This record gives sequence, structure tokens and C-alpha cells, in this order.
Amino acid sequence: MADGHAAPTTREHAFDLATAVHGGPTSWTATVDPGWTIGGRPNGGYLLTMATRAALGAIEHPHPLAVSGHFLAPPAVGPAELEVTSLRAGRSLSTARATLAQDGRPLLEALVTTGQLGADGTTGWQRASGPPDMPPPDECLRGQPDLPGGMRINILDHLDVRLDPATAGSFLGRPSGRLELRGWVRFQDGRPPDPLALLQAVDALPPTSFELGISTWAPTVELTVYLRAQPALGWLAVALRGQLWRDGWFDEDAEVWDARGRLVAQARQLAGARPRPS
Amino acid sequence: MADGHAAPTTREHAFDLATAVHGGPTSWTATVDPGWTIGGRPNGGYLLTMATRAALGAIEHPHPLAVSGHFLAPPAVGPAELEVTSLRAGRSLSTARATLAQDGRPLLEALVTTGQLGADGTTGWQRASGPPDMPPPDECLRGQPDLPGGMRINILDHLDVRLDPATAGSFLGRPSGRLELRGWVRFQDGRPPDPLALLQAVDALPPTSFELGISTWAPTVELTVYLRAQPALGWLAVALRGQLWRDGWFDEDAEVWDARGRLVAQARQLAGARPRPS
Repeated sequence: MADGHAAPTTREHAFDLATAVHGGPTSWTATVDPGWTIGGRPNGGYLLTMATRAALGAIEHPHPLAVSGHFLAPPAVGPAELEVTSLRAGRSLSTARATLAQDGRPLLEALVTTGQLGADGTTGWQRASGPPDMPPPDECLRGQPDLPGGMRINILDHLDVRLDPATAGSFLGRPSGRLELRGWVRFQDGRPPDPLALLQAVDALPPTSFELGISTWAPTVELTVYLRAQPALGWLAVALRGQLWRDGWFDEDAEVWDARGRLVAQARQLAGARPRPS
Repeated sequence: MADGHAAPTTREHAFDLATAVHGGPTSWTATVDPGWTIGGRPNGGYLLTMATRAALGAIEHPHPLAVSGHFLAPPAVGPAELEVTSLRAGRSLSTARATLAQDGRPLLEALVTTGQLGADGTTGWQRASGPPDMPPPDECLRGQPDLPGGMRINILDHLDVRLDPATAGSFLGRPSGRLELRGWVRFQDGRPPDPLALLQAVDALPPTSFELGISTWAPTVELTVYLRAQPALGWLAVALRGQLWRDGWFDEDAEVWDARGRLVAQARQLAGARPRPS
């Protein structure tokens, strides 16, 4: 890889092992891996990847195009079951529902529409914007798996996250007061990005609610991801931006740009943010 | 109502009759109404409302907070069945899956998370923006149910849509070239807006792909709506904005602002737009 990582091989990377599903094509088993948690809770993008993998194993077309997940309750680390139902098998699109459960209790319900993403898709029109304007990874704040408060961010053992200092005030003791955060993301072990990795990347940065001074866990209610192209090798640039925090809920948009400067994924989530009772 | 409409009554309005569901709490019947179609195809926001109504009849909590729909194929006008499965019954949130089908074939799969929306919710933080800047309804272009090409937009018999002329060039023979459209929306019969009406409002304007000069039907692949507050009486202001049209797919964000200037709904859809073969 251009940035000094070892040449990628397939299926031996931590992300693929941790999101692997077995069995199928409709009933799958998997293991919720302790390595992809934040304070003991599995990351939402990680879980959505697992559900999407199960769906991809049950329906036609190689790539997710649109994935919507409603998060019902945080799974525990350990065995899980996934049940997939095919809803459409079309010429250009297929759709499946995937339910991730433990002990028969549904914890994540996902809808996955698949198709074929171009490696060099034809951009018909694009808004005049571009990748987020931020310093190179080496001049950004490296995400630390051990937070001062004692919380363990295991997922940062696997994800190399670099935050634009201009937006990461909450980690320097002065939250910006805005739902906004920018950063770089790649896998620590050099796994190349692909559409599944984008499902992880949209949920890899800390929640923007940290920048409102709310440092508690921000449980995701809903997360939808649109995949727009196959990403190139290299760092992914992620820009998060929310519009409104009201009644304890906030929205958060994510744009992911690849190393060639192409918009490769768009996501939005609705999540909870309530200040810790004083 | 402040804008001269008759005082609203409940349950006798066209929108409620056309989205009514019968039976329940898990198996429902409904009728896809010819009045809410565009060129014979039922509108996506209309169908999502019907699915949400069925979900609301099966689970706790009065309001939809997050609704995600994957559109599998356009239903025909006529009888339909809805099957609802409860996925979570929580203290503050409930979630259900609703499948709209005809003759046993699934046509729309929706996930609905419900909760309690504030009438006067506490805005903790909001991005410095506001309702779209556009002329008042009387100075906008009124949506016409009969297009010059002969297509019948039945839904405009029920929805009063006024487009900001600055963004509606495609209706004046000069598309703007941007995925952008603004307009006002209300029901023709004076039905007051509520959270269900917002599900309709996010999909009430023409597709922004018209403004790229593509005047063909824009089939929705996925549509997610976040409801942020109960809307006030009066016109709804809708701002549509897309980021990227690539490989025949485009994204379209919708913001809906109520008559008090509050952001009451956010939506995003992924839809298809392909020029007619010449």
C-alpha cells in the first residue's frame, strides 16, 4: 500500500475474522468479538457489518448499496444468531432482512439492499464540495484505546483513528460546542478498505455529542448507510456533522471519502445523548 | 387554521382515509388508493405512512421517531396486506417491522421505532441554519396534477405543493443542473400536519433528479425519516438537496420545517435516475 502497510491479503484480517458468519444461507451463527467494543458494548458499525455479511450470503449481487439498521439492545460479547430472509431478487437489486439475536432475543434488525458498485463509477453530477479539509494523519490526534476516565475502547486496538484537532476539542478539555468531528480511519493491520469496511468507517469516530460536552455513551437508535463506490487503497477521510440535538436525541451525518478523493459512503444516524445526572 | 383553512377535524381527511389500516395488531389489510399516485405508481411517502400506521397499531408509544423503508417493487392500486412483528417494547422506545405485500409478495419492508415526540421539545443545540429561504406560497409555482407530457400526478389533487421558482427550473424548461428543490406543502383539505404527515411531506416534492434534466420516474431504493418534533399548524417548508448522482443512483436529503420555524423532520433517500434512452 502506498502508505507503507504490508500488501493486503484477504480473509486473514481481524475485521473479517470478527465479523465472520457461519452456516447460512438463511440461519447463521457468529461471535460478537470483544475486540470491537467501546466500554464493553459492541460498536454499531461493527454489528451492521456482521448483519450485512449474513445478508450478502443469502442474496444475489456482490455489494451492499443501502443498509438500514435499528438497534434494539446492545448484544453481549459471545455467540449470536443471524436469521436472514430474502425479500427481493431482482436483476439489478436484491434485498434481505437480517435479524441479529442472542438467546432468541432480537438485538439488531437490518435491511440490506445489494447491487453492483463500480470501481470507477461514472459520476454524473456532484455537489461542489470535496474531502474534508484537515491536516494529514500524522498531524492529527491518534485515538487512544484507554480514556482518562478508565473506559476501554477496544475497537481502537483494531482501528487506526486520527482526529482533526480543530474538531476534537472534547479530547483536549474544551468541547467545540458543535455536532462536528473529522478524522482519518484505517485498519491497524493493513486490511484494505472495501464496501464492508465503509460500514465500519461511518461509525468509527467518537460520537459528535462528545463535542457538546456530553461524554456518556451515545446509543444508536437507527443507522442507515449508502455505499456509493468501491474505495481505493489508503486512508479513509470521515466527516461527521449533526444538525439538531433535541429532547435527548441527535442526528449525525457521516461522509466517507477515499484516498482518491471520491465520496464512497454516506450515512446518518439518530442517537441518544443525555448528560450524566449531576 | 391561521392560513384560512377550515378548522381541522380528525379522521375524515383524505390522507387518513387513504392510509387507513384495518384489523391488527399483527395482520392488517389496507387499500392502496389511486389518489396518491404519480403516473399510476403509489408515492413512497404515502406507502411509508401506511406501513407506519400498521406498526403504530402493534406497538407502544404514540409517535414514529425513526422509520426506514426499502422499496422492493411498486404496489398496484387496490388491496394490500401488512404484516407487523414487534421487535422491542422498551420504556422509551419500541420497534416493529412492517411488510406491505400484495398477493403474498413483499413490496415494501419498513422498520419503525416509536417514542414520544415533544410538542415543545427542548432544543439543546441546533446548527446555525433555519427554514429554507424562499418566497411565500403565493409567489411560488403551484404543483400541477397534469403534466404537459400527459403524466397524471394524482397526489397533487390531495397535496398543495408550491415550488420555489428559483429551484424549479425543470418546470420552466431550464433545469438548474443541481440536485436541489425547495417548496411548501400542505394538504388540500386542510388536514393539520402531524408526525404521519411528515412522512408524506419528505417525499411530496418532485424528485431533484428533474433538475438534472432527467424527467423519468425516480424509483426510491431506500428512504429513512427521522421525526424531531410535532409540527405546528400551517404550511410545511421542505428543502431537498442531493450530494451525488453516480452510476444511475442519487441521494436526496429532505428537511422539513414547520410554520413556527422548527426543524420537524429529516429524511434521506437513495433513488434511481437514468436518462431515457434516446
